This record gives sequence, structure tokens and C-alpha cells, in this order.
Amino acid sequence: MGFSYLDNKELEHVLNEYLSFISEKINKSDEEIAAYNSLNRITSEAVYAGISSPHYLASAMDGIAANAKKTFGATETTPALLKENEDFERIDTGDPLPDRFDTVIMIEDVIELQNGTIKLINAGFPWQNIRQIGEDICQGEMIIPSNIKIEPAAIGALLAGGVSKIRVWKKPVVGIIPTGDEIIKPTLNPEKGKIIEFNSSVFSSMLFNWGADFKVYDIVPDKYELIKNAALNAVSECDIVLINAGSSAGRDDYTSHVIKELGEVLFHGISIKPGKPAILGMIENKPVIGIPGYPVSGIIIMEQIVKKILELYSSSLFAPRPQVKAALSRKIVSSLKYKEFIRVKLGDVSGNIIATPLTSGAGVITSFVKADGLITIPQNTEGYESGTIVDVELLKNFGDIKNTVVITGSHDPLIDEISDILRRNYTGYFVASSHVGSMAGLMAVKKNEAHIAGIHLLDENTGEYNISYIKKYLNPDEIVLVKGVKRTQGLIVAKNNPLNIAKINDLDNNNIRFVNRQKGSGTRILLDYLLNKENINPDNIYGYTREEYTHLSVAVQISQGSADAGLGVYSAAKIYGLGFIPVCEEDYDFILHKKNMDSDLIQRFLSILKSEEFKQRLMKTGGYKLENCGGIIS
Amino acid sequence: MGFSYLDNKELEHVLNEYLSFISEKINKSDEEIAAYNSLNRITSEAVYAGISSPHYLASAMDGIAANAKKTFGATETTPALLKENEDFERIDTGDPLPDRFDTVIMIEDVIELQNGTIKLINAGFPWQNIRQIGEDICQGEMIIPSNIKIEPAAIGALLAGGVSKIRVWKKPVVGIIPTGDEIIKPTLNPEKGKIIEFNSSVFSSMLFNWGADFKVYDIVPDKYELIKNAALNAVSECDIVLINAGSSAGRDDYTSHVIKELGEVLFHGISIKPGKPAILGMIENKPVIGIPGYPVSGIIIMEQIVKKILELYSSSLFAPRPQVKAALSRKIVSSLKYKEFIRVKLGDVSGNIIATPLTSGAGVITSFVKADGLITIPQNTEGYESGTIVDVELLKNFGDIKNTVVITGSHDPLIDEISDILRRNYTGYFVASSHVGSMAGLMAVKKNEAHIAGIHLLDENTGEYNISYIKKYLNPDEIVLVKGVKRTQGLIVAKNNPLNIAKINDLDNNNIRFVNRQKGSGTRILLDYLLNKENINPDNIYGYTREEYTHLSVAVQISQGSADAGLGVYSAAKIYGLGFIPVCEEDYDFILHKKNMDSDLIQRFLSILKSEEFKQRLMKTGGYKLENCGGIIS
Repeated sequence: MGFSYLDNKELEHVLNEYLSFISEKINKSDEEIAAYNSLNRITSEAVYAGISSPHYLASAMDGIAANAKKTFGATETTPALLKENEDFERIDTGDPLPDRFDTVIMIEDVIELQNGTIKLINAGFPWQNIRQIGEDICQGEMIIPSNIKIEPAAIGALLAGGVSKIRVWKKPVVGIIPTGDEIIKPTLNPEKGKIIEFNSSVFSSMLFNWGADFKVYDIVPDKYELIKNAALNAVSECDIVLINAGSSAGRDDYTSHVIKELGEVLFHGISIKPGKPAILGMIENKPVIGIPGYPVSGIIIMEQIVKKILELYSSSLFAPRPQVKAALSRKIVSSLKYKEFIRVKLGDVSGNIIATPLTSGAGVITSFVKADGLITIPQNTEGYESGTIVDVELLKNFGDIKNTVVITGSHDPLIDEISDILRRNYTGYFVASSHVGSMAGLMAVKKNEAHIAGIHLLDENTGEYNISYIKKYLNPDEIVLVKGVKRTQGLIVAKNNPLNIAKINDLDNNNIRFVNRQKGSGTRILLDYLLNKENINPDNIYGYTREEYTHLSVAVQISQGSADAGLGVYSAAKIYGLGFIPVCEEDYDFILHKKNMDSDLIQRFLSILKSEEFKQRLMKTGGYKLENCGGIIS
Repeated sequence: MGFSYLDNKELEHVLNEYLSFISEKINKSDEEIAAYNSLNRITSEAVYAGISSPHYLASAMDGIAANAKKTFGATETTPALLKENEDFERIDTGDPLPDRFDTVIMIEDVIELQNGTIKLINAGFPWQNIRQIGEDICQGEMIIPSNIKIEPAAIGALLAGGVSKIRVWKKPVVGIIPTGDEIIKPTLNPEKGKIIEFNSSVFSSMLFNWGADFKVYDIVPDKYELIKNAALNAVSECDIVLINAGSSAGRDDYTSHVIKELGEVLFHGISIKPGKPAILGMIENKPVIGIPGYPVSGIIIMEQIVKKILELYSSSLFAPRPQVKAALSRKIVSSLKYKEFIRVKLGDVSGNIIATPLTSGAGVITSFVKADGLITIPQNTEGYESGTIVDVELLKNFGDIKNTVVITGSHDPLIDEISDILRRNYTGYFVASSHVGSMAGLMAVKKNEAHIAGIHLLDENTGEYNISYIKKYLNPDEIVLVKGVKRTQGLIVAKNNPLNIAKINDLDNNNIRFVNRQKGSGTRILLDYLLNKENINPDNIYGYTREEYTHLSVAVQISQGSADAGLGVYSAAKIYGLGFIPVCEEDYDFILHKKNMDSDLIQRFLSILKSEEFKQRLMKTGGYKLENCGGIIS
């Protein structure tokens, strides 16, 4: 098909034009369903009550039914005397009022005499203690107008109003066609070059939450005719069709060509990031959307476009996500050409809500799992300075964010274990962690962007860990250093160490492909210290500039054979069954602000460090020594 | 069983004690399910990745794979020349990087020569344009900790991480046992004294939305042994059992006695309103809750107690409802003895959010359909003055409330038709209506509690409608009077008028049971005017003090034979096929603040008044004349 260029049209323009175009053409229909089974469906017409509720005059009390007139003037000295069955009848709450009576007197006000006679010393008013007919619902009254979502109480009102069936909008059926030569069904053993197809599961889950039905088709290879046939089939079976990937303008991107042949492409290319190469088309009066392949791009297009199309099918709007204001923890640079959606982590550290942008690419689905919110940067804006107060669309509950311990700094798999122990022992509390390295962690605590940072910073002069850094970069009076663990750092090498790597000096060898950690990480500082001690020039280490952000991602390169050696902790090597040459033991500790010490969040964190459960988990992993873990060092 | 007295224990105390008691005893269990099918379930243990994603070094660009070393020093004058298959291979985005190469150079930077040779004038850096193994997920990494709800993106992360099955908490099964001699299954033809059972549908809908399973049992009559057997059976089949009604301390209230015999009653009677007569018990280590019979009381107990019990089964908390601040439109008086939950309507009329308490009783399910929020008045508080700023727990989306036209004043069924036409023509907009009578409507507009009031206020001196009242009670410069309809008021009587009522004077007759409208309503003012003109003493009209709030509820009393005559509009009589003796024609108009005229909400309202659709609907109803409807009178 050759290359072509995408448009770069504004999202609002594209949406307005597209939605008003298709709203004239789509065929929405309704159906009759049982009222008791109508939860969360949307009415397609107004519902009127078939009967009144209550449908009879009902006693609102336990007591007697009588004629008010016969009680008028009753006092202690001139009581009213009433005869059972003649002047009154006994009545319970909910019982129908006999036609000949017009008042109910509560049992507490009735004085029993003999022979079925009673005495009253207070008059009854007409219609007192009586539920009027239609108090709740009058026959013929509109119970629910059109285009309203049925909530639980509405189901009660429908049934009370004698409505057994109602008309609701049919759920639109959305077909999802995954395409691509390289994608395969989920598996535990993908071949090199094959990519697990999970977008269809993400998109169908979103559709389910939005009340739509869906149909996921088999994966279609990158062949024009096959995609065309799949699209034709889906259009015949569904109301809306999503073709996933192939939406760009590259060699194998057939989606737009297929839609053009079968129907029309209204828009191709939107000035948003991620999500630019989306296609908005129509085949046989059914919306057909080309969704970009990267999962984050796909999610954005689902949210920004597909969700709006669904609204047409129910003539009602989804609730927008709640928003909060937050201060940016760092500058965001944005292209003038695009409206950008930035995933952020939120933290409530010092009473202020801080938003930290997640920098990973559109291919990283876990970034959406970790994200607490989305920031939108308008087109023609260069971005925002650090500290700017921005509107954040919440992806998580705000209450949960307030109950989240924000941990940053150096990476260690033990942080995830802390997170899990917290979830298991303290309902309603969460850990949010990010791995920025020890130095950046230090700064994050200083700037109140995180509650806690894990650090292992070696002072090259004293050989001591962490303390001199706190003295140099922080105000020691305001900071608490909490004892963490001693952990073993060493060279991670392939299983059985085929290259016979024994010591740091062996890295100075062009045949060994090293993989490094990022600048500012404690492990990088340790490496540089070791290289310096051995007088090794980093330029002589092949892969010194290849940076990974966690111990696991260093180890995984080695386990997959894409690198031969890296510096990291024993636990990371162990996960993959790799070789490990111990180099040194180091102090991995935690720092936090003294003023936060008494908070629930911190106390829970400390209690976990001291717990037997934590100890057991680290023993199982290996490579850690725990002594006074969770104790205050200074 | 005789009478006994309920406790009046504080909700927080009851909850703390009860939840900590049962959390030790309940048997929660988990199950393994397919990851792709785990949406909205809650993890029972941490999930770790089985594979890395990507699981191989993948090209991030279309271009060539090469060795960086062979490109070092390349410039325009000293280009690097590479031979295909020897020095480089062509590679597309997503393709695996061949083992012998370490860089990808984008196709745009490649200059093609002959014989499969290419020229580069810039060096490539090692590992550039390459997606590292584990960029998204590293094998062995924790993807999700315990007790986390699975969102769509998390399903993607699980599948990408090679996780096909995960362990989640089993959904607890909640059994619902409706009890009562008087209750029957939903029907269109209930007998007198029979009440339609809809609570089980409301409760099960709430449970569904909370992610629980449920089982609704057949209705059990008020017989001790039958209730006991039903409870035993439900306890054997379910995790939690709800017994609906019979939870009070009256003659036929067996629930607490049954629970006591089979297990234990921990609490009976909570100091909340509505919801006081709840029972918290346990049978065979399963929570058994006695839920009051009135639907609003039941909903409160579901929300305040049952929802908290469910949280124990997933070790996670439900998101609290969002809250807003609002000013009370009127005083609320609260008993010191109870914590009270007050249903309110919210309106955004003048930029301030106004909360208007709904006064209907706990038996009125439609009040929960109409309610936008809940206010909580703590125990030992006498209530709040009008104007107090209170926290409102939102039952509807706040955005919807902002897009709601608040209409009050005199009741006419045409308001519901306006509401429906708005829903059908303007997606995202709503009408909230209440019927307080013309005079109260006038005051509500004055105090910015409503956008619009429908009024029909007769000036007895001039015979003119509405204008003199605006002059007297409002600032005419600030108010717009919008033409509504002319409607026919008359005496509503039984079908075929069996009592031969012909004129107002006929009401002065003890054999005719009249039903009146509330004070301040335009129809009441009209009646008083007519009585005065005819020199009739209201005291001589039987039923003059029996007040209803709408035309429909007046008409429904007559249609059900509980009254013989009432004053009301033709459309109300017509719904029930009743007799109607026209008395006069009146102007039913609308007032609103001039400053709101240009708002979207008001413009939409006015366009509906002017629409053909509105006209058609009223013609179908009958009893209305439309002339210049929606036009500005003054």
C-alpha cells in the first residue's frame, strides 16, 4: 500500500464531526425486558405506573379503625365509648382501612373496657395514621423518563408501580478484530518475535464496564484480503467494529485502505499523544474504528472516542471521572503539535497532592496499571513547569490515594513484598512504589514527593552507607533513618557462569557484554567505586552505557542471553536461576521525614519491617540479613 | 412472642463490635479463575509474572540492525559502508534483534547504494531503538499484590506477563428471605391489604453492584417455624443471610427470636433513622441480618451494615461515595436520640449548590429514586438551620446535577412530559421537579432554590392570574414570566358521577367525601375563592382538611373510592377515566430569574415549551390550551 501521511486534526473537531455524522446513520434499537432484571440498563421511553402504591388506604399503625366523628369531643371527663365491630375494628400496620372508617387510633391510646367496648379520651382526626392511596406512586404517574440508567431503588419503584416490563436500549455489540503477523494468543512460551495479544482483553473489559456487549474475533494476519473479510464479517454481526493495529501509515498498515474500500474513512490521524494514528470510519452505516497497536494508545482511543460512540446508543452520557488538583513533581515538556495525555502517580505526602508523571512509552501496559490519574496538556502548550498545579482526572479512588504509602528511591524486590504484606494486613491501605535510584529518592523525600525512600549510598571515603549523604543533602534534624536490610551485591552472570567471570576486573574485556544501572542509582555508584578502585576505565566496558532501572531488568537481560554480566542483588539472580559472584554487603535503609513518623501510614510500614512475615519472605528469597530491621538508626 | 424493647446502640459501636466478632468466624475462601475473565474480581494473593514482556530484544523502529562498533566515526566525509547479511539485516518494528547485532538504525538514516550495500553518515549508539527485554514486565516481578480489584489494564498486564490464571476471593453468596403475611410477588392486580414485595429486587441489585452473588428465596409467611426453617436452609446454602422484615419488636416480629434460637443475636436496635430496628446476628458462623421492612430503612441498613460485611470477604474496601458541600434550603429538625440519614435533592441554581430535604417517610421508595444525595445528622444534634452548609454524600453524578433544570411550584403532569422531552432531545440534561404548590414555588425562585416555578395564582380582586403575586412577592425587574398553558380546573368525581355532583355548592353536604390540596397550592387558593364566592363554610365540607400534594393523588383517591370529589385539572381525571365538571380555566405559567435566561438549561426548557412535541403530548392528554406557550409575558 506504500507510505502515506496521517492528518493531525484536533480531537474536539474530529469528535464533533464524526459523532454528528454517524448519529444520523446508526441504527439503534430497543427491547422489552423484565423490570426486576433491568439494573444498569437505560430506558428508551418514559415509564408510567400501572397501579398506585399503596393501592389502598392502609393503616400506618397498630390500633383501631374508627369514625373520627364518633370521637369528637372526647376528653378524660367526657370519654368516647366505642363498640367493637360496630364503632371500630382492630387494625394492624399495613391492613386496609375498612370503607366505613376514616381514622386510625394507635393502640397505646386505646383503653380496653369489658364486652368489646373501648374508651378514648382524645379525639381522632380524620385520615390520621392512614397511608393515603398513591402516597408513594400514583397510577399513571411517570416513574422514570427516557434515557435514564436504572438504579436499584428504581427497580423497587417500578415493581411497586405495577410495572413488570420496560423498554430499554439494546446494548450495542462491539466487534474487536486483532490483526498482525507477529501477535499470538496469550501463552507462557512465546517465540522470539511473537507478541502476546492482550489488547482485545483490555478493550473488551472496558466495554463490559461501559455496559456494552462485545465479540472478540480471531487474530487476523497482515493480509489485505483477510482483514477485509474479517471486517465485512464483523460489520454484519456487530454494531460497532474495532480493528486493532495496522492503523498507522506504514507498509503493512492495511486498516485504512480496507475501510476505504468497504465504506469511508472520515478521519485518519488525530493531534493527540498517545493515540495519533487512529482511524474513524464507517462501513454499511456502522462505525468502524482503527485503533493503534500500542496498548496505552489503544486505551486512550477507547476512552476518548469509542466511549463517546457508545453514548449515542443509549442517548445518555457516562459520568466523567472525578478530578483533583495536584502539584507536578517535575517539569513536563509537551509538543505544540499534540494534545497530550500524561499518566501520573499521585501521592499525598505533606497534605499536598503531588503528581509524578510516568515516563514510560505507549507500549508499557503496566504504566496504566500503576497510574493514579491522567493529566491533559492542551495542544499549542509547551508543557508545565515543576510545581504547577494541574487538574488530574482520577483513575483510582481518591480515598485510596490518601491511604497510600509512597515509596521511592532504590529498587529492591522487597518493596513489592512490603506492598503485599500491607494489603494482607491492613485493609484499605496501599503502597505505591517507583524506582528512581537512591539519589533521586533522597531528593524526593526532601521535596515531600514521597513518604519513604530506600537508599544504599556508599561513602567512598569512609566505606559507610547512607549517613554522610543525609548529612550532605538533607537536614538531619528533620530526617529519620530507619534500619532496613543488609543485602549482598555481586556480579550476576549466566547460569553456571560459562564465561568464567570471577571479579570486577573481568569486565574490562570486549567479549563480555555488560548491562549497567542508571546514573544516580546506588548500584551504579557502587560500580563506579569498584571500577575506580581497580583503575578500570568505564569506556573499556562494553555495555557500560546500556542502562536498566531495576535489579530484575538487569538480571532478565542476562537470563535471556542479551547480556553476560551486570551488578545487582542476589535475590534478582536467584529468580532466574543465574550465576552470582558476591562482591560486597551493603546497607539498604529507609529515610523519611520525622514529622510523618506518627502517621498511620508510616507506623504500618514500620510494623511490617519488624514483622515475622517480612523476615520469612526475605529468608525465602535469600541474599538478605535482617538485624534490627525497622529500628530507628538516627 | 409478645412485645420487647429494642436497644438504641450507636452505629459505630455496633459496627466495630460486630465486624470484629464475625471477622474471626467467617469462612472466606478463594478460587482460581482465568486471568482474561478476572475483571472486577479481587486478588486473594500476589500475582508474579511468568515471563518478561517484551521477552526478546525487539526493534522499536523500521530500519536496519547492525553493530554499533562498525558505525563509529561515520560522518558525511567518512561514511560507514555496510554489506547486507554480513554487516546488517533489515528489521521492522517488533522484529527480534539478531544476536550478533546491538543497534538499530532507522530507515530514514539509511542511504541505499548498489549490491546490497548501504551508507551511513551518522554513528549508531549501542542499544538505540531497541526495546529491552522486560521493559514492561520482568519475569518474577510482582504484577499485582493481594486484595486488589482487577481493572481492564491489569488484565493486559497479566496476559503480557504470561499469567493465565489467578487466585481471587470467591464472591460471597447472600441469601435474601422476604417474610410477611401481607406481601406478595410483583403483580398488576394486588388485592386490598396485600403489599408488593420489591425489597428483594432492590437489595439483590445493590448486591450485584457490589460484586456479590445472591439468592432470593420465596416469601415466607409470619410463622415462627416457617421462618426458622427458611433461615436454616439459607444458612446452609449462603455465606450471609438477610431476613427482610419482622425485625422490629412487635407481635409478629419473629426474626430476632429465630436467630436467637438458631444462633445468637449480637445487636438489636441501632440509634439510626431510618433503620433502627435492625438485627445483627450469627448462625453457624454466618452473619444473619434482620432488615427492617420499609424500603428506605432497608436500603440504609444495606449501605451501612451489609456493605461493610461484604468488605470482610474481599479484604478490601468499597470506594466511598463522592461528597459535595451544599446549603440547606430549609431547617431540618433531628431527634437527639438518633443519627439521621436525610435524603436530599440538589440543585445548582445560582452557582451555589442547594440541598432540599425530602420529607417523605421510610415507606416511600420513590424518594430514593428522586434523591440526589444523603445528609447525615449526627446523634445528639438537634438538626441544622436553613442555610447551613452541609456535607452531602452524592447518590447521582455531580455533573448531572449541574445539568439539571430544577422546577418546582404547582404540580401538573405536564412537568413530567417536559422532563421526558428534555431527556429525549438533549443528551446529558435532566429535570428535577418537586410539587410544593404555587406560593412555595414563588418563594423557591426568589431564594434561588429552583430555576423555574410553575404557578397559577388567582388574584381574587382582579380575576387575573400570577402577575399581581409577582409584583407583591418578588422584584418584577428581576423576574421573567413565561407563558405556559391554559388549563381547565374542575371537580373530579367518580366515573359517571354517581352522586350527581354538579357545582361547588354540592360539596356542602356531609354525604360527599371531599379530598383537598395542601395550603399554598394554587388549587387550594382557587377552592377557597370559590367557596367564599358561594358563601360556603369550609368546616361544612367533609374532607376539607384531608390534603394531597398533586392532582394525581387527589384523582387517585377518587378512582379508588376513598373520596367522592376533589378540585383538580382535567388531565388528572382523564388518566383514571373519572368524571369531570369544569369550573374555570386558569393560566398555568412559569417564573424564573432574568439573570438565568441565557443559560443552556433555561434555553432548552423554553425550546421545549415552544416545541411541536410538547404541544402534541398535551393535546393527547386533553384539558390544555396552548397559545404562545414559551413566550415571554413580562
